[in-house]
Amino acid sequence: MLSQEYYELKEIVDNHILDFMPEIDTKTNTLFEAMKYSLLAGGKRIRPILMLTFFKIASNNKMDISFAIPYAEAIEYIQTYSLIHDDLPAMDNDDYRRGKLTNHKVFGEDIAILAGDGLLSAAYEIMLKDSLLYLTDSDLLKRKVKASFELSKGTGVRGMIQGQVADVENEAKSCTAELLEFIDANKTGAFIKSSILVGCYLGGATKELLEDATVYGESLGHAFQIVDDIMDVISTKEERGKNVGGDATNEKNTYPSIYGIEESKKQALKLLEKAENSVSKYNANQVALDIVAYLKEQII
Amino acid sequence: MLSQEYYELKEIVDNHILDFMPEIDTKTNTLFEAMKYSLLAGGKRIRPILMLTFFKIASNNKMDISFAIPYAEAIEYIQTYSLIHDDLPAMDNDDYRRGKLTNHKVFGEDIAILAGDGLLSAAYEIMLKDSLLYLTDSDLLKRKVKASFELSKGTGVRGMIQGQVADVENEAKSCTAELLEFIDANKTGAFIKSSILVGCYLGGATKELLEDATVYGESLGHAFQIVDDIMDVISTKEERGKNVGGDATNEKNTYPSIYGIEESKKQALKLLEKAENSVSKYNANQVALDIVAYLKEQII
Repeated sequence: MLSQEYYELKEIVDNHILDFMPEIDTKTNTLFEAMKYSLLAGGKRIRPILMLTFFKIASNNKMDISFAIPYAEAIEYIQTYSLIHDDLPAMDNDDYRRGKLTNHKVFGEDIAILAGDGLLSAAYEIMLKDSLLYLTDSDLLKRKVKASFELSKGTGVRGMIQGQVADVENEAKSCTAELLEFIDANKTGAFIKSSILVGCYLGGATKELLEDATVYGESLGHAFQIVDDIMDVISTKEERGKNVGGDATNEKNTYPSIYGIEESKKQALKLLEKAENSVSKYNANQVALDIVAYLKEQII
Repeated sequence: MLSQEYYELKEIVDNHILDFMPEIDTKTNTLFEAMKYSLLAGGKRIRPILMLTFFKIASNNKMDISFAIPYAEAIEYIQTYSLIHDDLPAMDNDDYRRGKLTNHKVFGEDIAILAGDGLLSAAYEIMLKDSLLYLTDSDLLKRKVKASFELSKGTGVRGMIQGQVADVENEAKSCTAELLEFIDANKTGAFIKSSILVGCYLGGATKELLEDATVYGESLGHAFQIVDDIMDVISTKEERGKNVGGDATNEKNTYPSIYGIEESKKQALKLLEKAENSVSKYNANQVALDIVAYLKEQII
């Protein structure tokens, strides 16, 4: 179970998720409707919450959280764009996500593509506009620029996007353990790690914290993907109402498909312990431990 | 005809267009191949050239052009992503652009979507990485941040993308002159104006130059779209080998479709004169005048 502190941070993210959105303009209603639809489609906000948590750790709880909020918004805009584009017919071709129709099923493919592009552009517009508020304080401005760059790296072509490409390209092919590692580290891990480092940069982290946060982010990010893949297999079985064993229709390369469920659980737990250890020495890290515990619960 | 100075700037842009690209990695070969394919598909590089021109005007030719080059690269990455996504089957569904197969015809729709997302992300990664080089000079860092923000605005959901949405949504519908103005100003004009202002910010423009450059950018951007629409009609006629009058199969709302060819030419020439006048007092503006003259030639 996630702690109250997690839900407090989630409420902050939810309350600010539409800060960037304009008053409705009849000429482009649909664009903003489509962006809002997916922003409000019920995400757990794990990435911005991780960012805010590490911002609090890095700043020893001494900085006002408003300093980091635009970056929480930006992170969730990037997460949302990536889901909209992932769901498109040419990609995963999903009609539903979290029980709701996917963006293109509601607004059409053209608007879904543009809404995704719009969310990605908006993420940078939000961060850069926010940075302009700190032109007179070069120390804080530097933190903002470092944080924005970190996010662009983690979610860009040497991070999340190259992971997606490798995933798409190797579907329905057998895949080495090394390639699976590469896919997971980039497709899922890079963005999670970046979100954590964004919080560190904004909060003025020490070199030591940056190193520990990197270990935490890499371990958690990897475990996150493995747990997700395990859940996919388990929930497929439940839907079928019986234990059918390996899902032969699943063409994605995953930990369970290569190592089997039990070995995958073992690996995930090992990674989650590593994540836990990397931040145990810091105070105010309840949420960082929460998320680890939450992932453990899913597979124990 | 465009001047030698134009082609000198184009050569600079062309020589640096792949600066961001990595050594080939076998795991994600296709992503970078797809990005490169469209980056090298023969664009005129008008936006980055306009940016470099105004950078030179703003800095009185006193700053090294290398200061602005990463932004030229970023601008062309954004232009290229927007073309790849525009050409997709769910959008304009074009098989060819400038006589070459469009990105999705060569690499598939999934990779084309990801290559577009990758180019957009890379644009910000390039600008932000470059900004990190100026952490010790807060005046230059501020210029970089202002320039990046300007570009995010012009190409984002209150600029280019809202123009594309309004365009897509009003296809095959009759359209008021006011709405057409809105579409043109955003779909084409906003990015051109932003590119110009990026150059101004990087070069440390005076308030007066910023104002004149805004007039130039808005007038040129608008004229650019009108001339493009006129050329579309004219080249359609040529392809058909006879003068067929208005093209009834063209479902887009354009100046020619609302005002007719002659009135559209008149309006474009008026805008081009306005652009010319707005920069005539500045030295070193040969390329800014070149581009105006080039557009005039197309329709006279």
